[in-house]
Amino acid sequence: MSFAGEQHMGVVTPPPETQGFRLNHLMLRVASPERSLAFYSRVFGMQVLRRLDFAEMQFSLYFLARLEEGDSVPEAQDARTTWTFQQKGLLELTHNWGTETQEGFAYHDGNAEPQGFGHICFSVPDLAKAQAWFDANDVTFIKRADQGKMKDVIFVKDPDGYWIEVVQADLLANMGD
Amino acid sequence: MSFAGEQHMGVVTPPPETQGFRLNHLMLRVASPERSLAFYSRVFGMQVLRRLDFAEMQFSLYFLARLEEGDSVPEAQDARTTWTFQQKGLLELTHNWGTETQEGFAYHDGNAEPQGFGHICFSVPDLAKAQAWFDANDVTFIKRADQGKMKDVIFVKDPDGYWIEVVQADLLANMGD
Repeated sequence: MSFAGEQHMGVVTPPPETQGFRLNHLMLRVASPERSLAFYSRVFGMQVLRRLDFAEMQFSLYFLARLEEGDSVPEAQDARTTWTFQQKGLLELTHNWGTETQEGFAYHDGNAEPQGFGHICFSVPDLAKAQAWFDANDVTFIKRADQGKMKDVIFVKDPDGYWIEVVQADLLANMGD
Repeated sequence: MSFAGEQHMGVVTPPPETQGFRLNHLMLRVASPERSLAFYSRVFGMQVLRRLDFAEMQFSLYFLARLEEGDSVPEAQDARTTWTFQQKGLLELTHNWGTETQEGFAYHDGNAEPQGFGHICFSVPDLAKAQAWFDANDVTFIKRADQGKMKDVIFVKDPDGYWIEVVQADLLANMGD
């Protein structure tokens, strides 16, 4: 498709019908919200913008963001919910009630077969300091910055085993062939 | 964990070691980059910021963004790569060379068993117009805005079958119990 081909150059103007579209979040199912929230809040500095409970369907949703300077989250719950769905790059964690107490319950990380989803990636200001921070927090490494074919790229696991890539933007300027 | 508990309120200050951490992207494996790039560029207005090829490992990466007013993407390739890894909320598509020609090849969407990853979500300015736009582009619906228990939430499928949620922020102000 020539259209897709042109897209490789990034030169095509997006259709006007897509004006204002934003990639708001990705959703991952987690077995234990306590465990996952402790991990993402401590290790990656994320905060829960909104928790939504659905008693009839027996699940809860947690929308997490690594807030930045200038972000002002509304206090009122309805305004905060709207603000949450207007953001870019959030992490939504879904908890199906009861999984946290099921012996041996585990979700699929997408990297073992059958493959599909691969990972989420955080950009950090200093990769070496981030690696030391992960060590200080006993985070499980899949790959350290100096291991494997892709140097300066870290992969760690979240509590459910989902892969988290960690990079320092300026170190990857010459990545790829 | 009280720490996680406090996080439900979003009142905890992120550890200083996480300053500047940003959720840069999520990665999905796709069978055919031509097909996926045509879909995401046409239907969601995304553009390829950078394509990275890795001949030795036989795969290519495509970093897509729905650029917004004020985004100025560097022209120089190395500067553009660095810029890409500094952004928030990108979509990375991974193409393992050859899958596009394998008869019946398919990736796992994470919603069928074994479950894990759920979906990505786009926030749009006008849900009704977005639904009409998807119809105009023959997008496969999982759920329309007026179907199911969750009103005003659309779910469509991308070419690999990954679920894409589409919402209009202000319509969800009172979501949840």
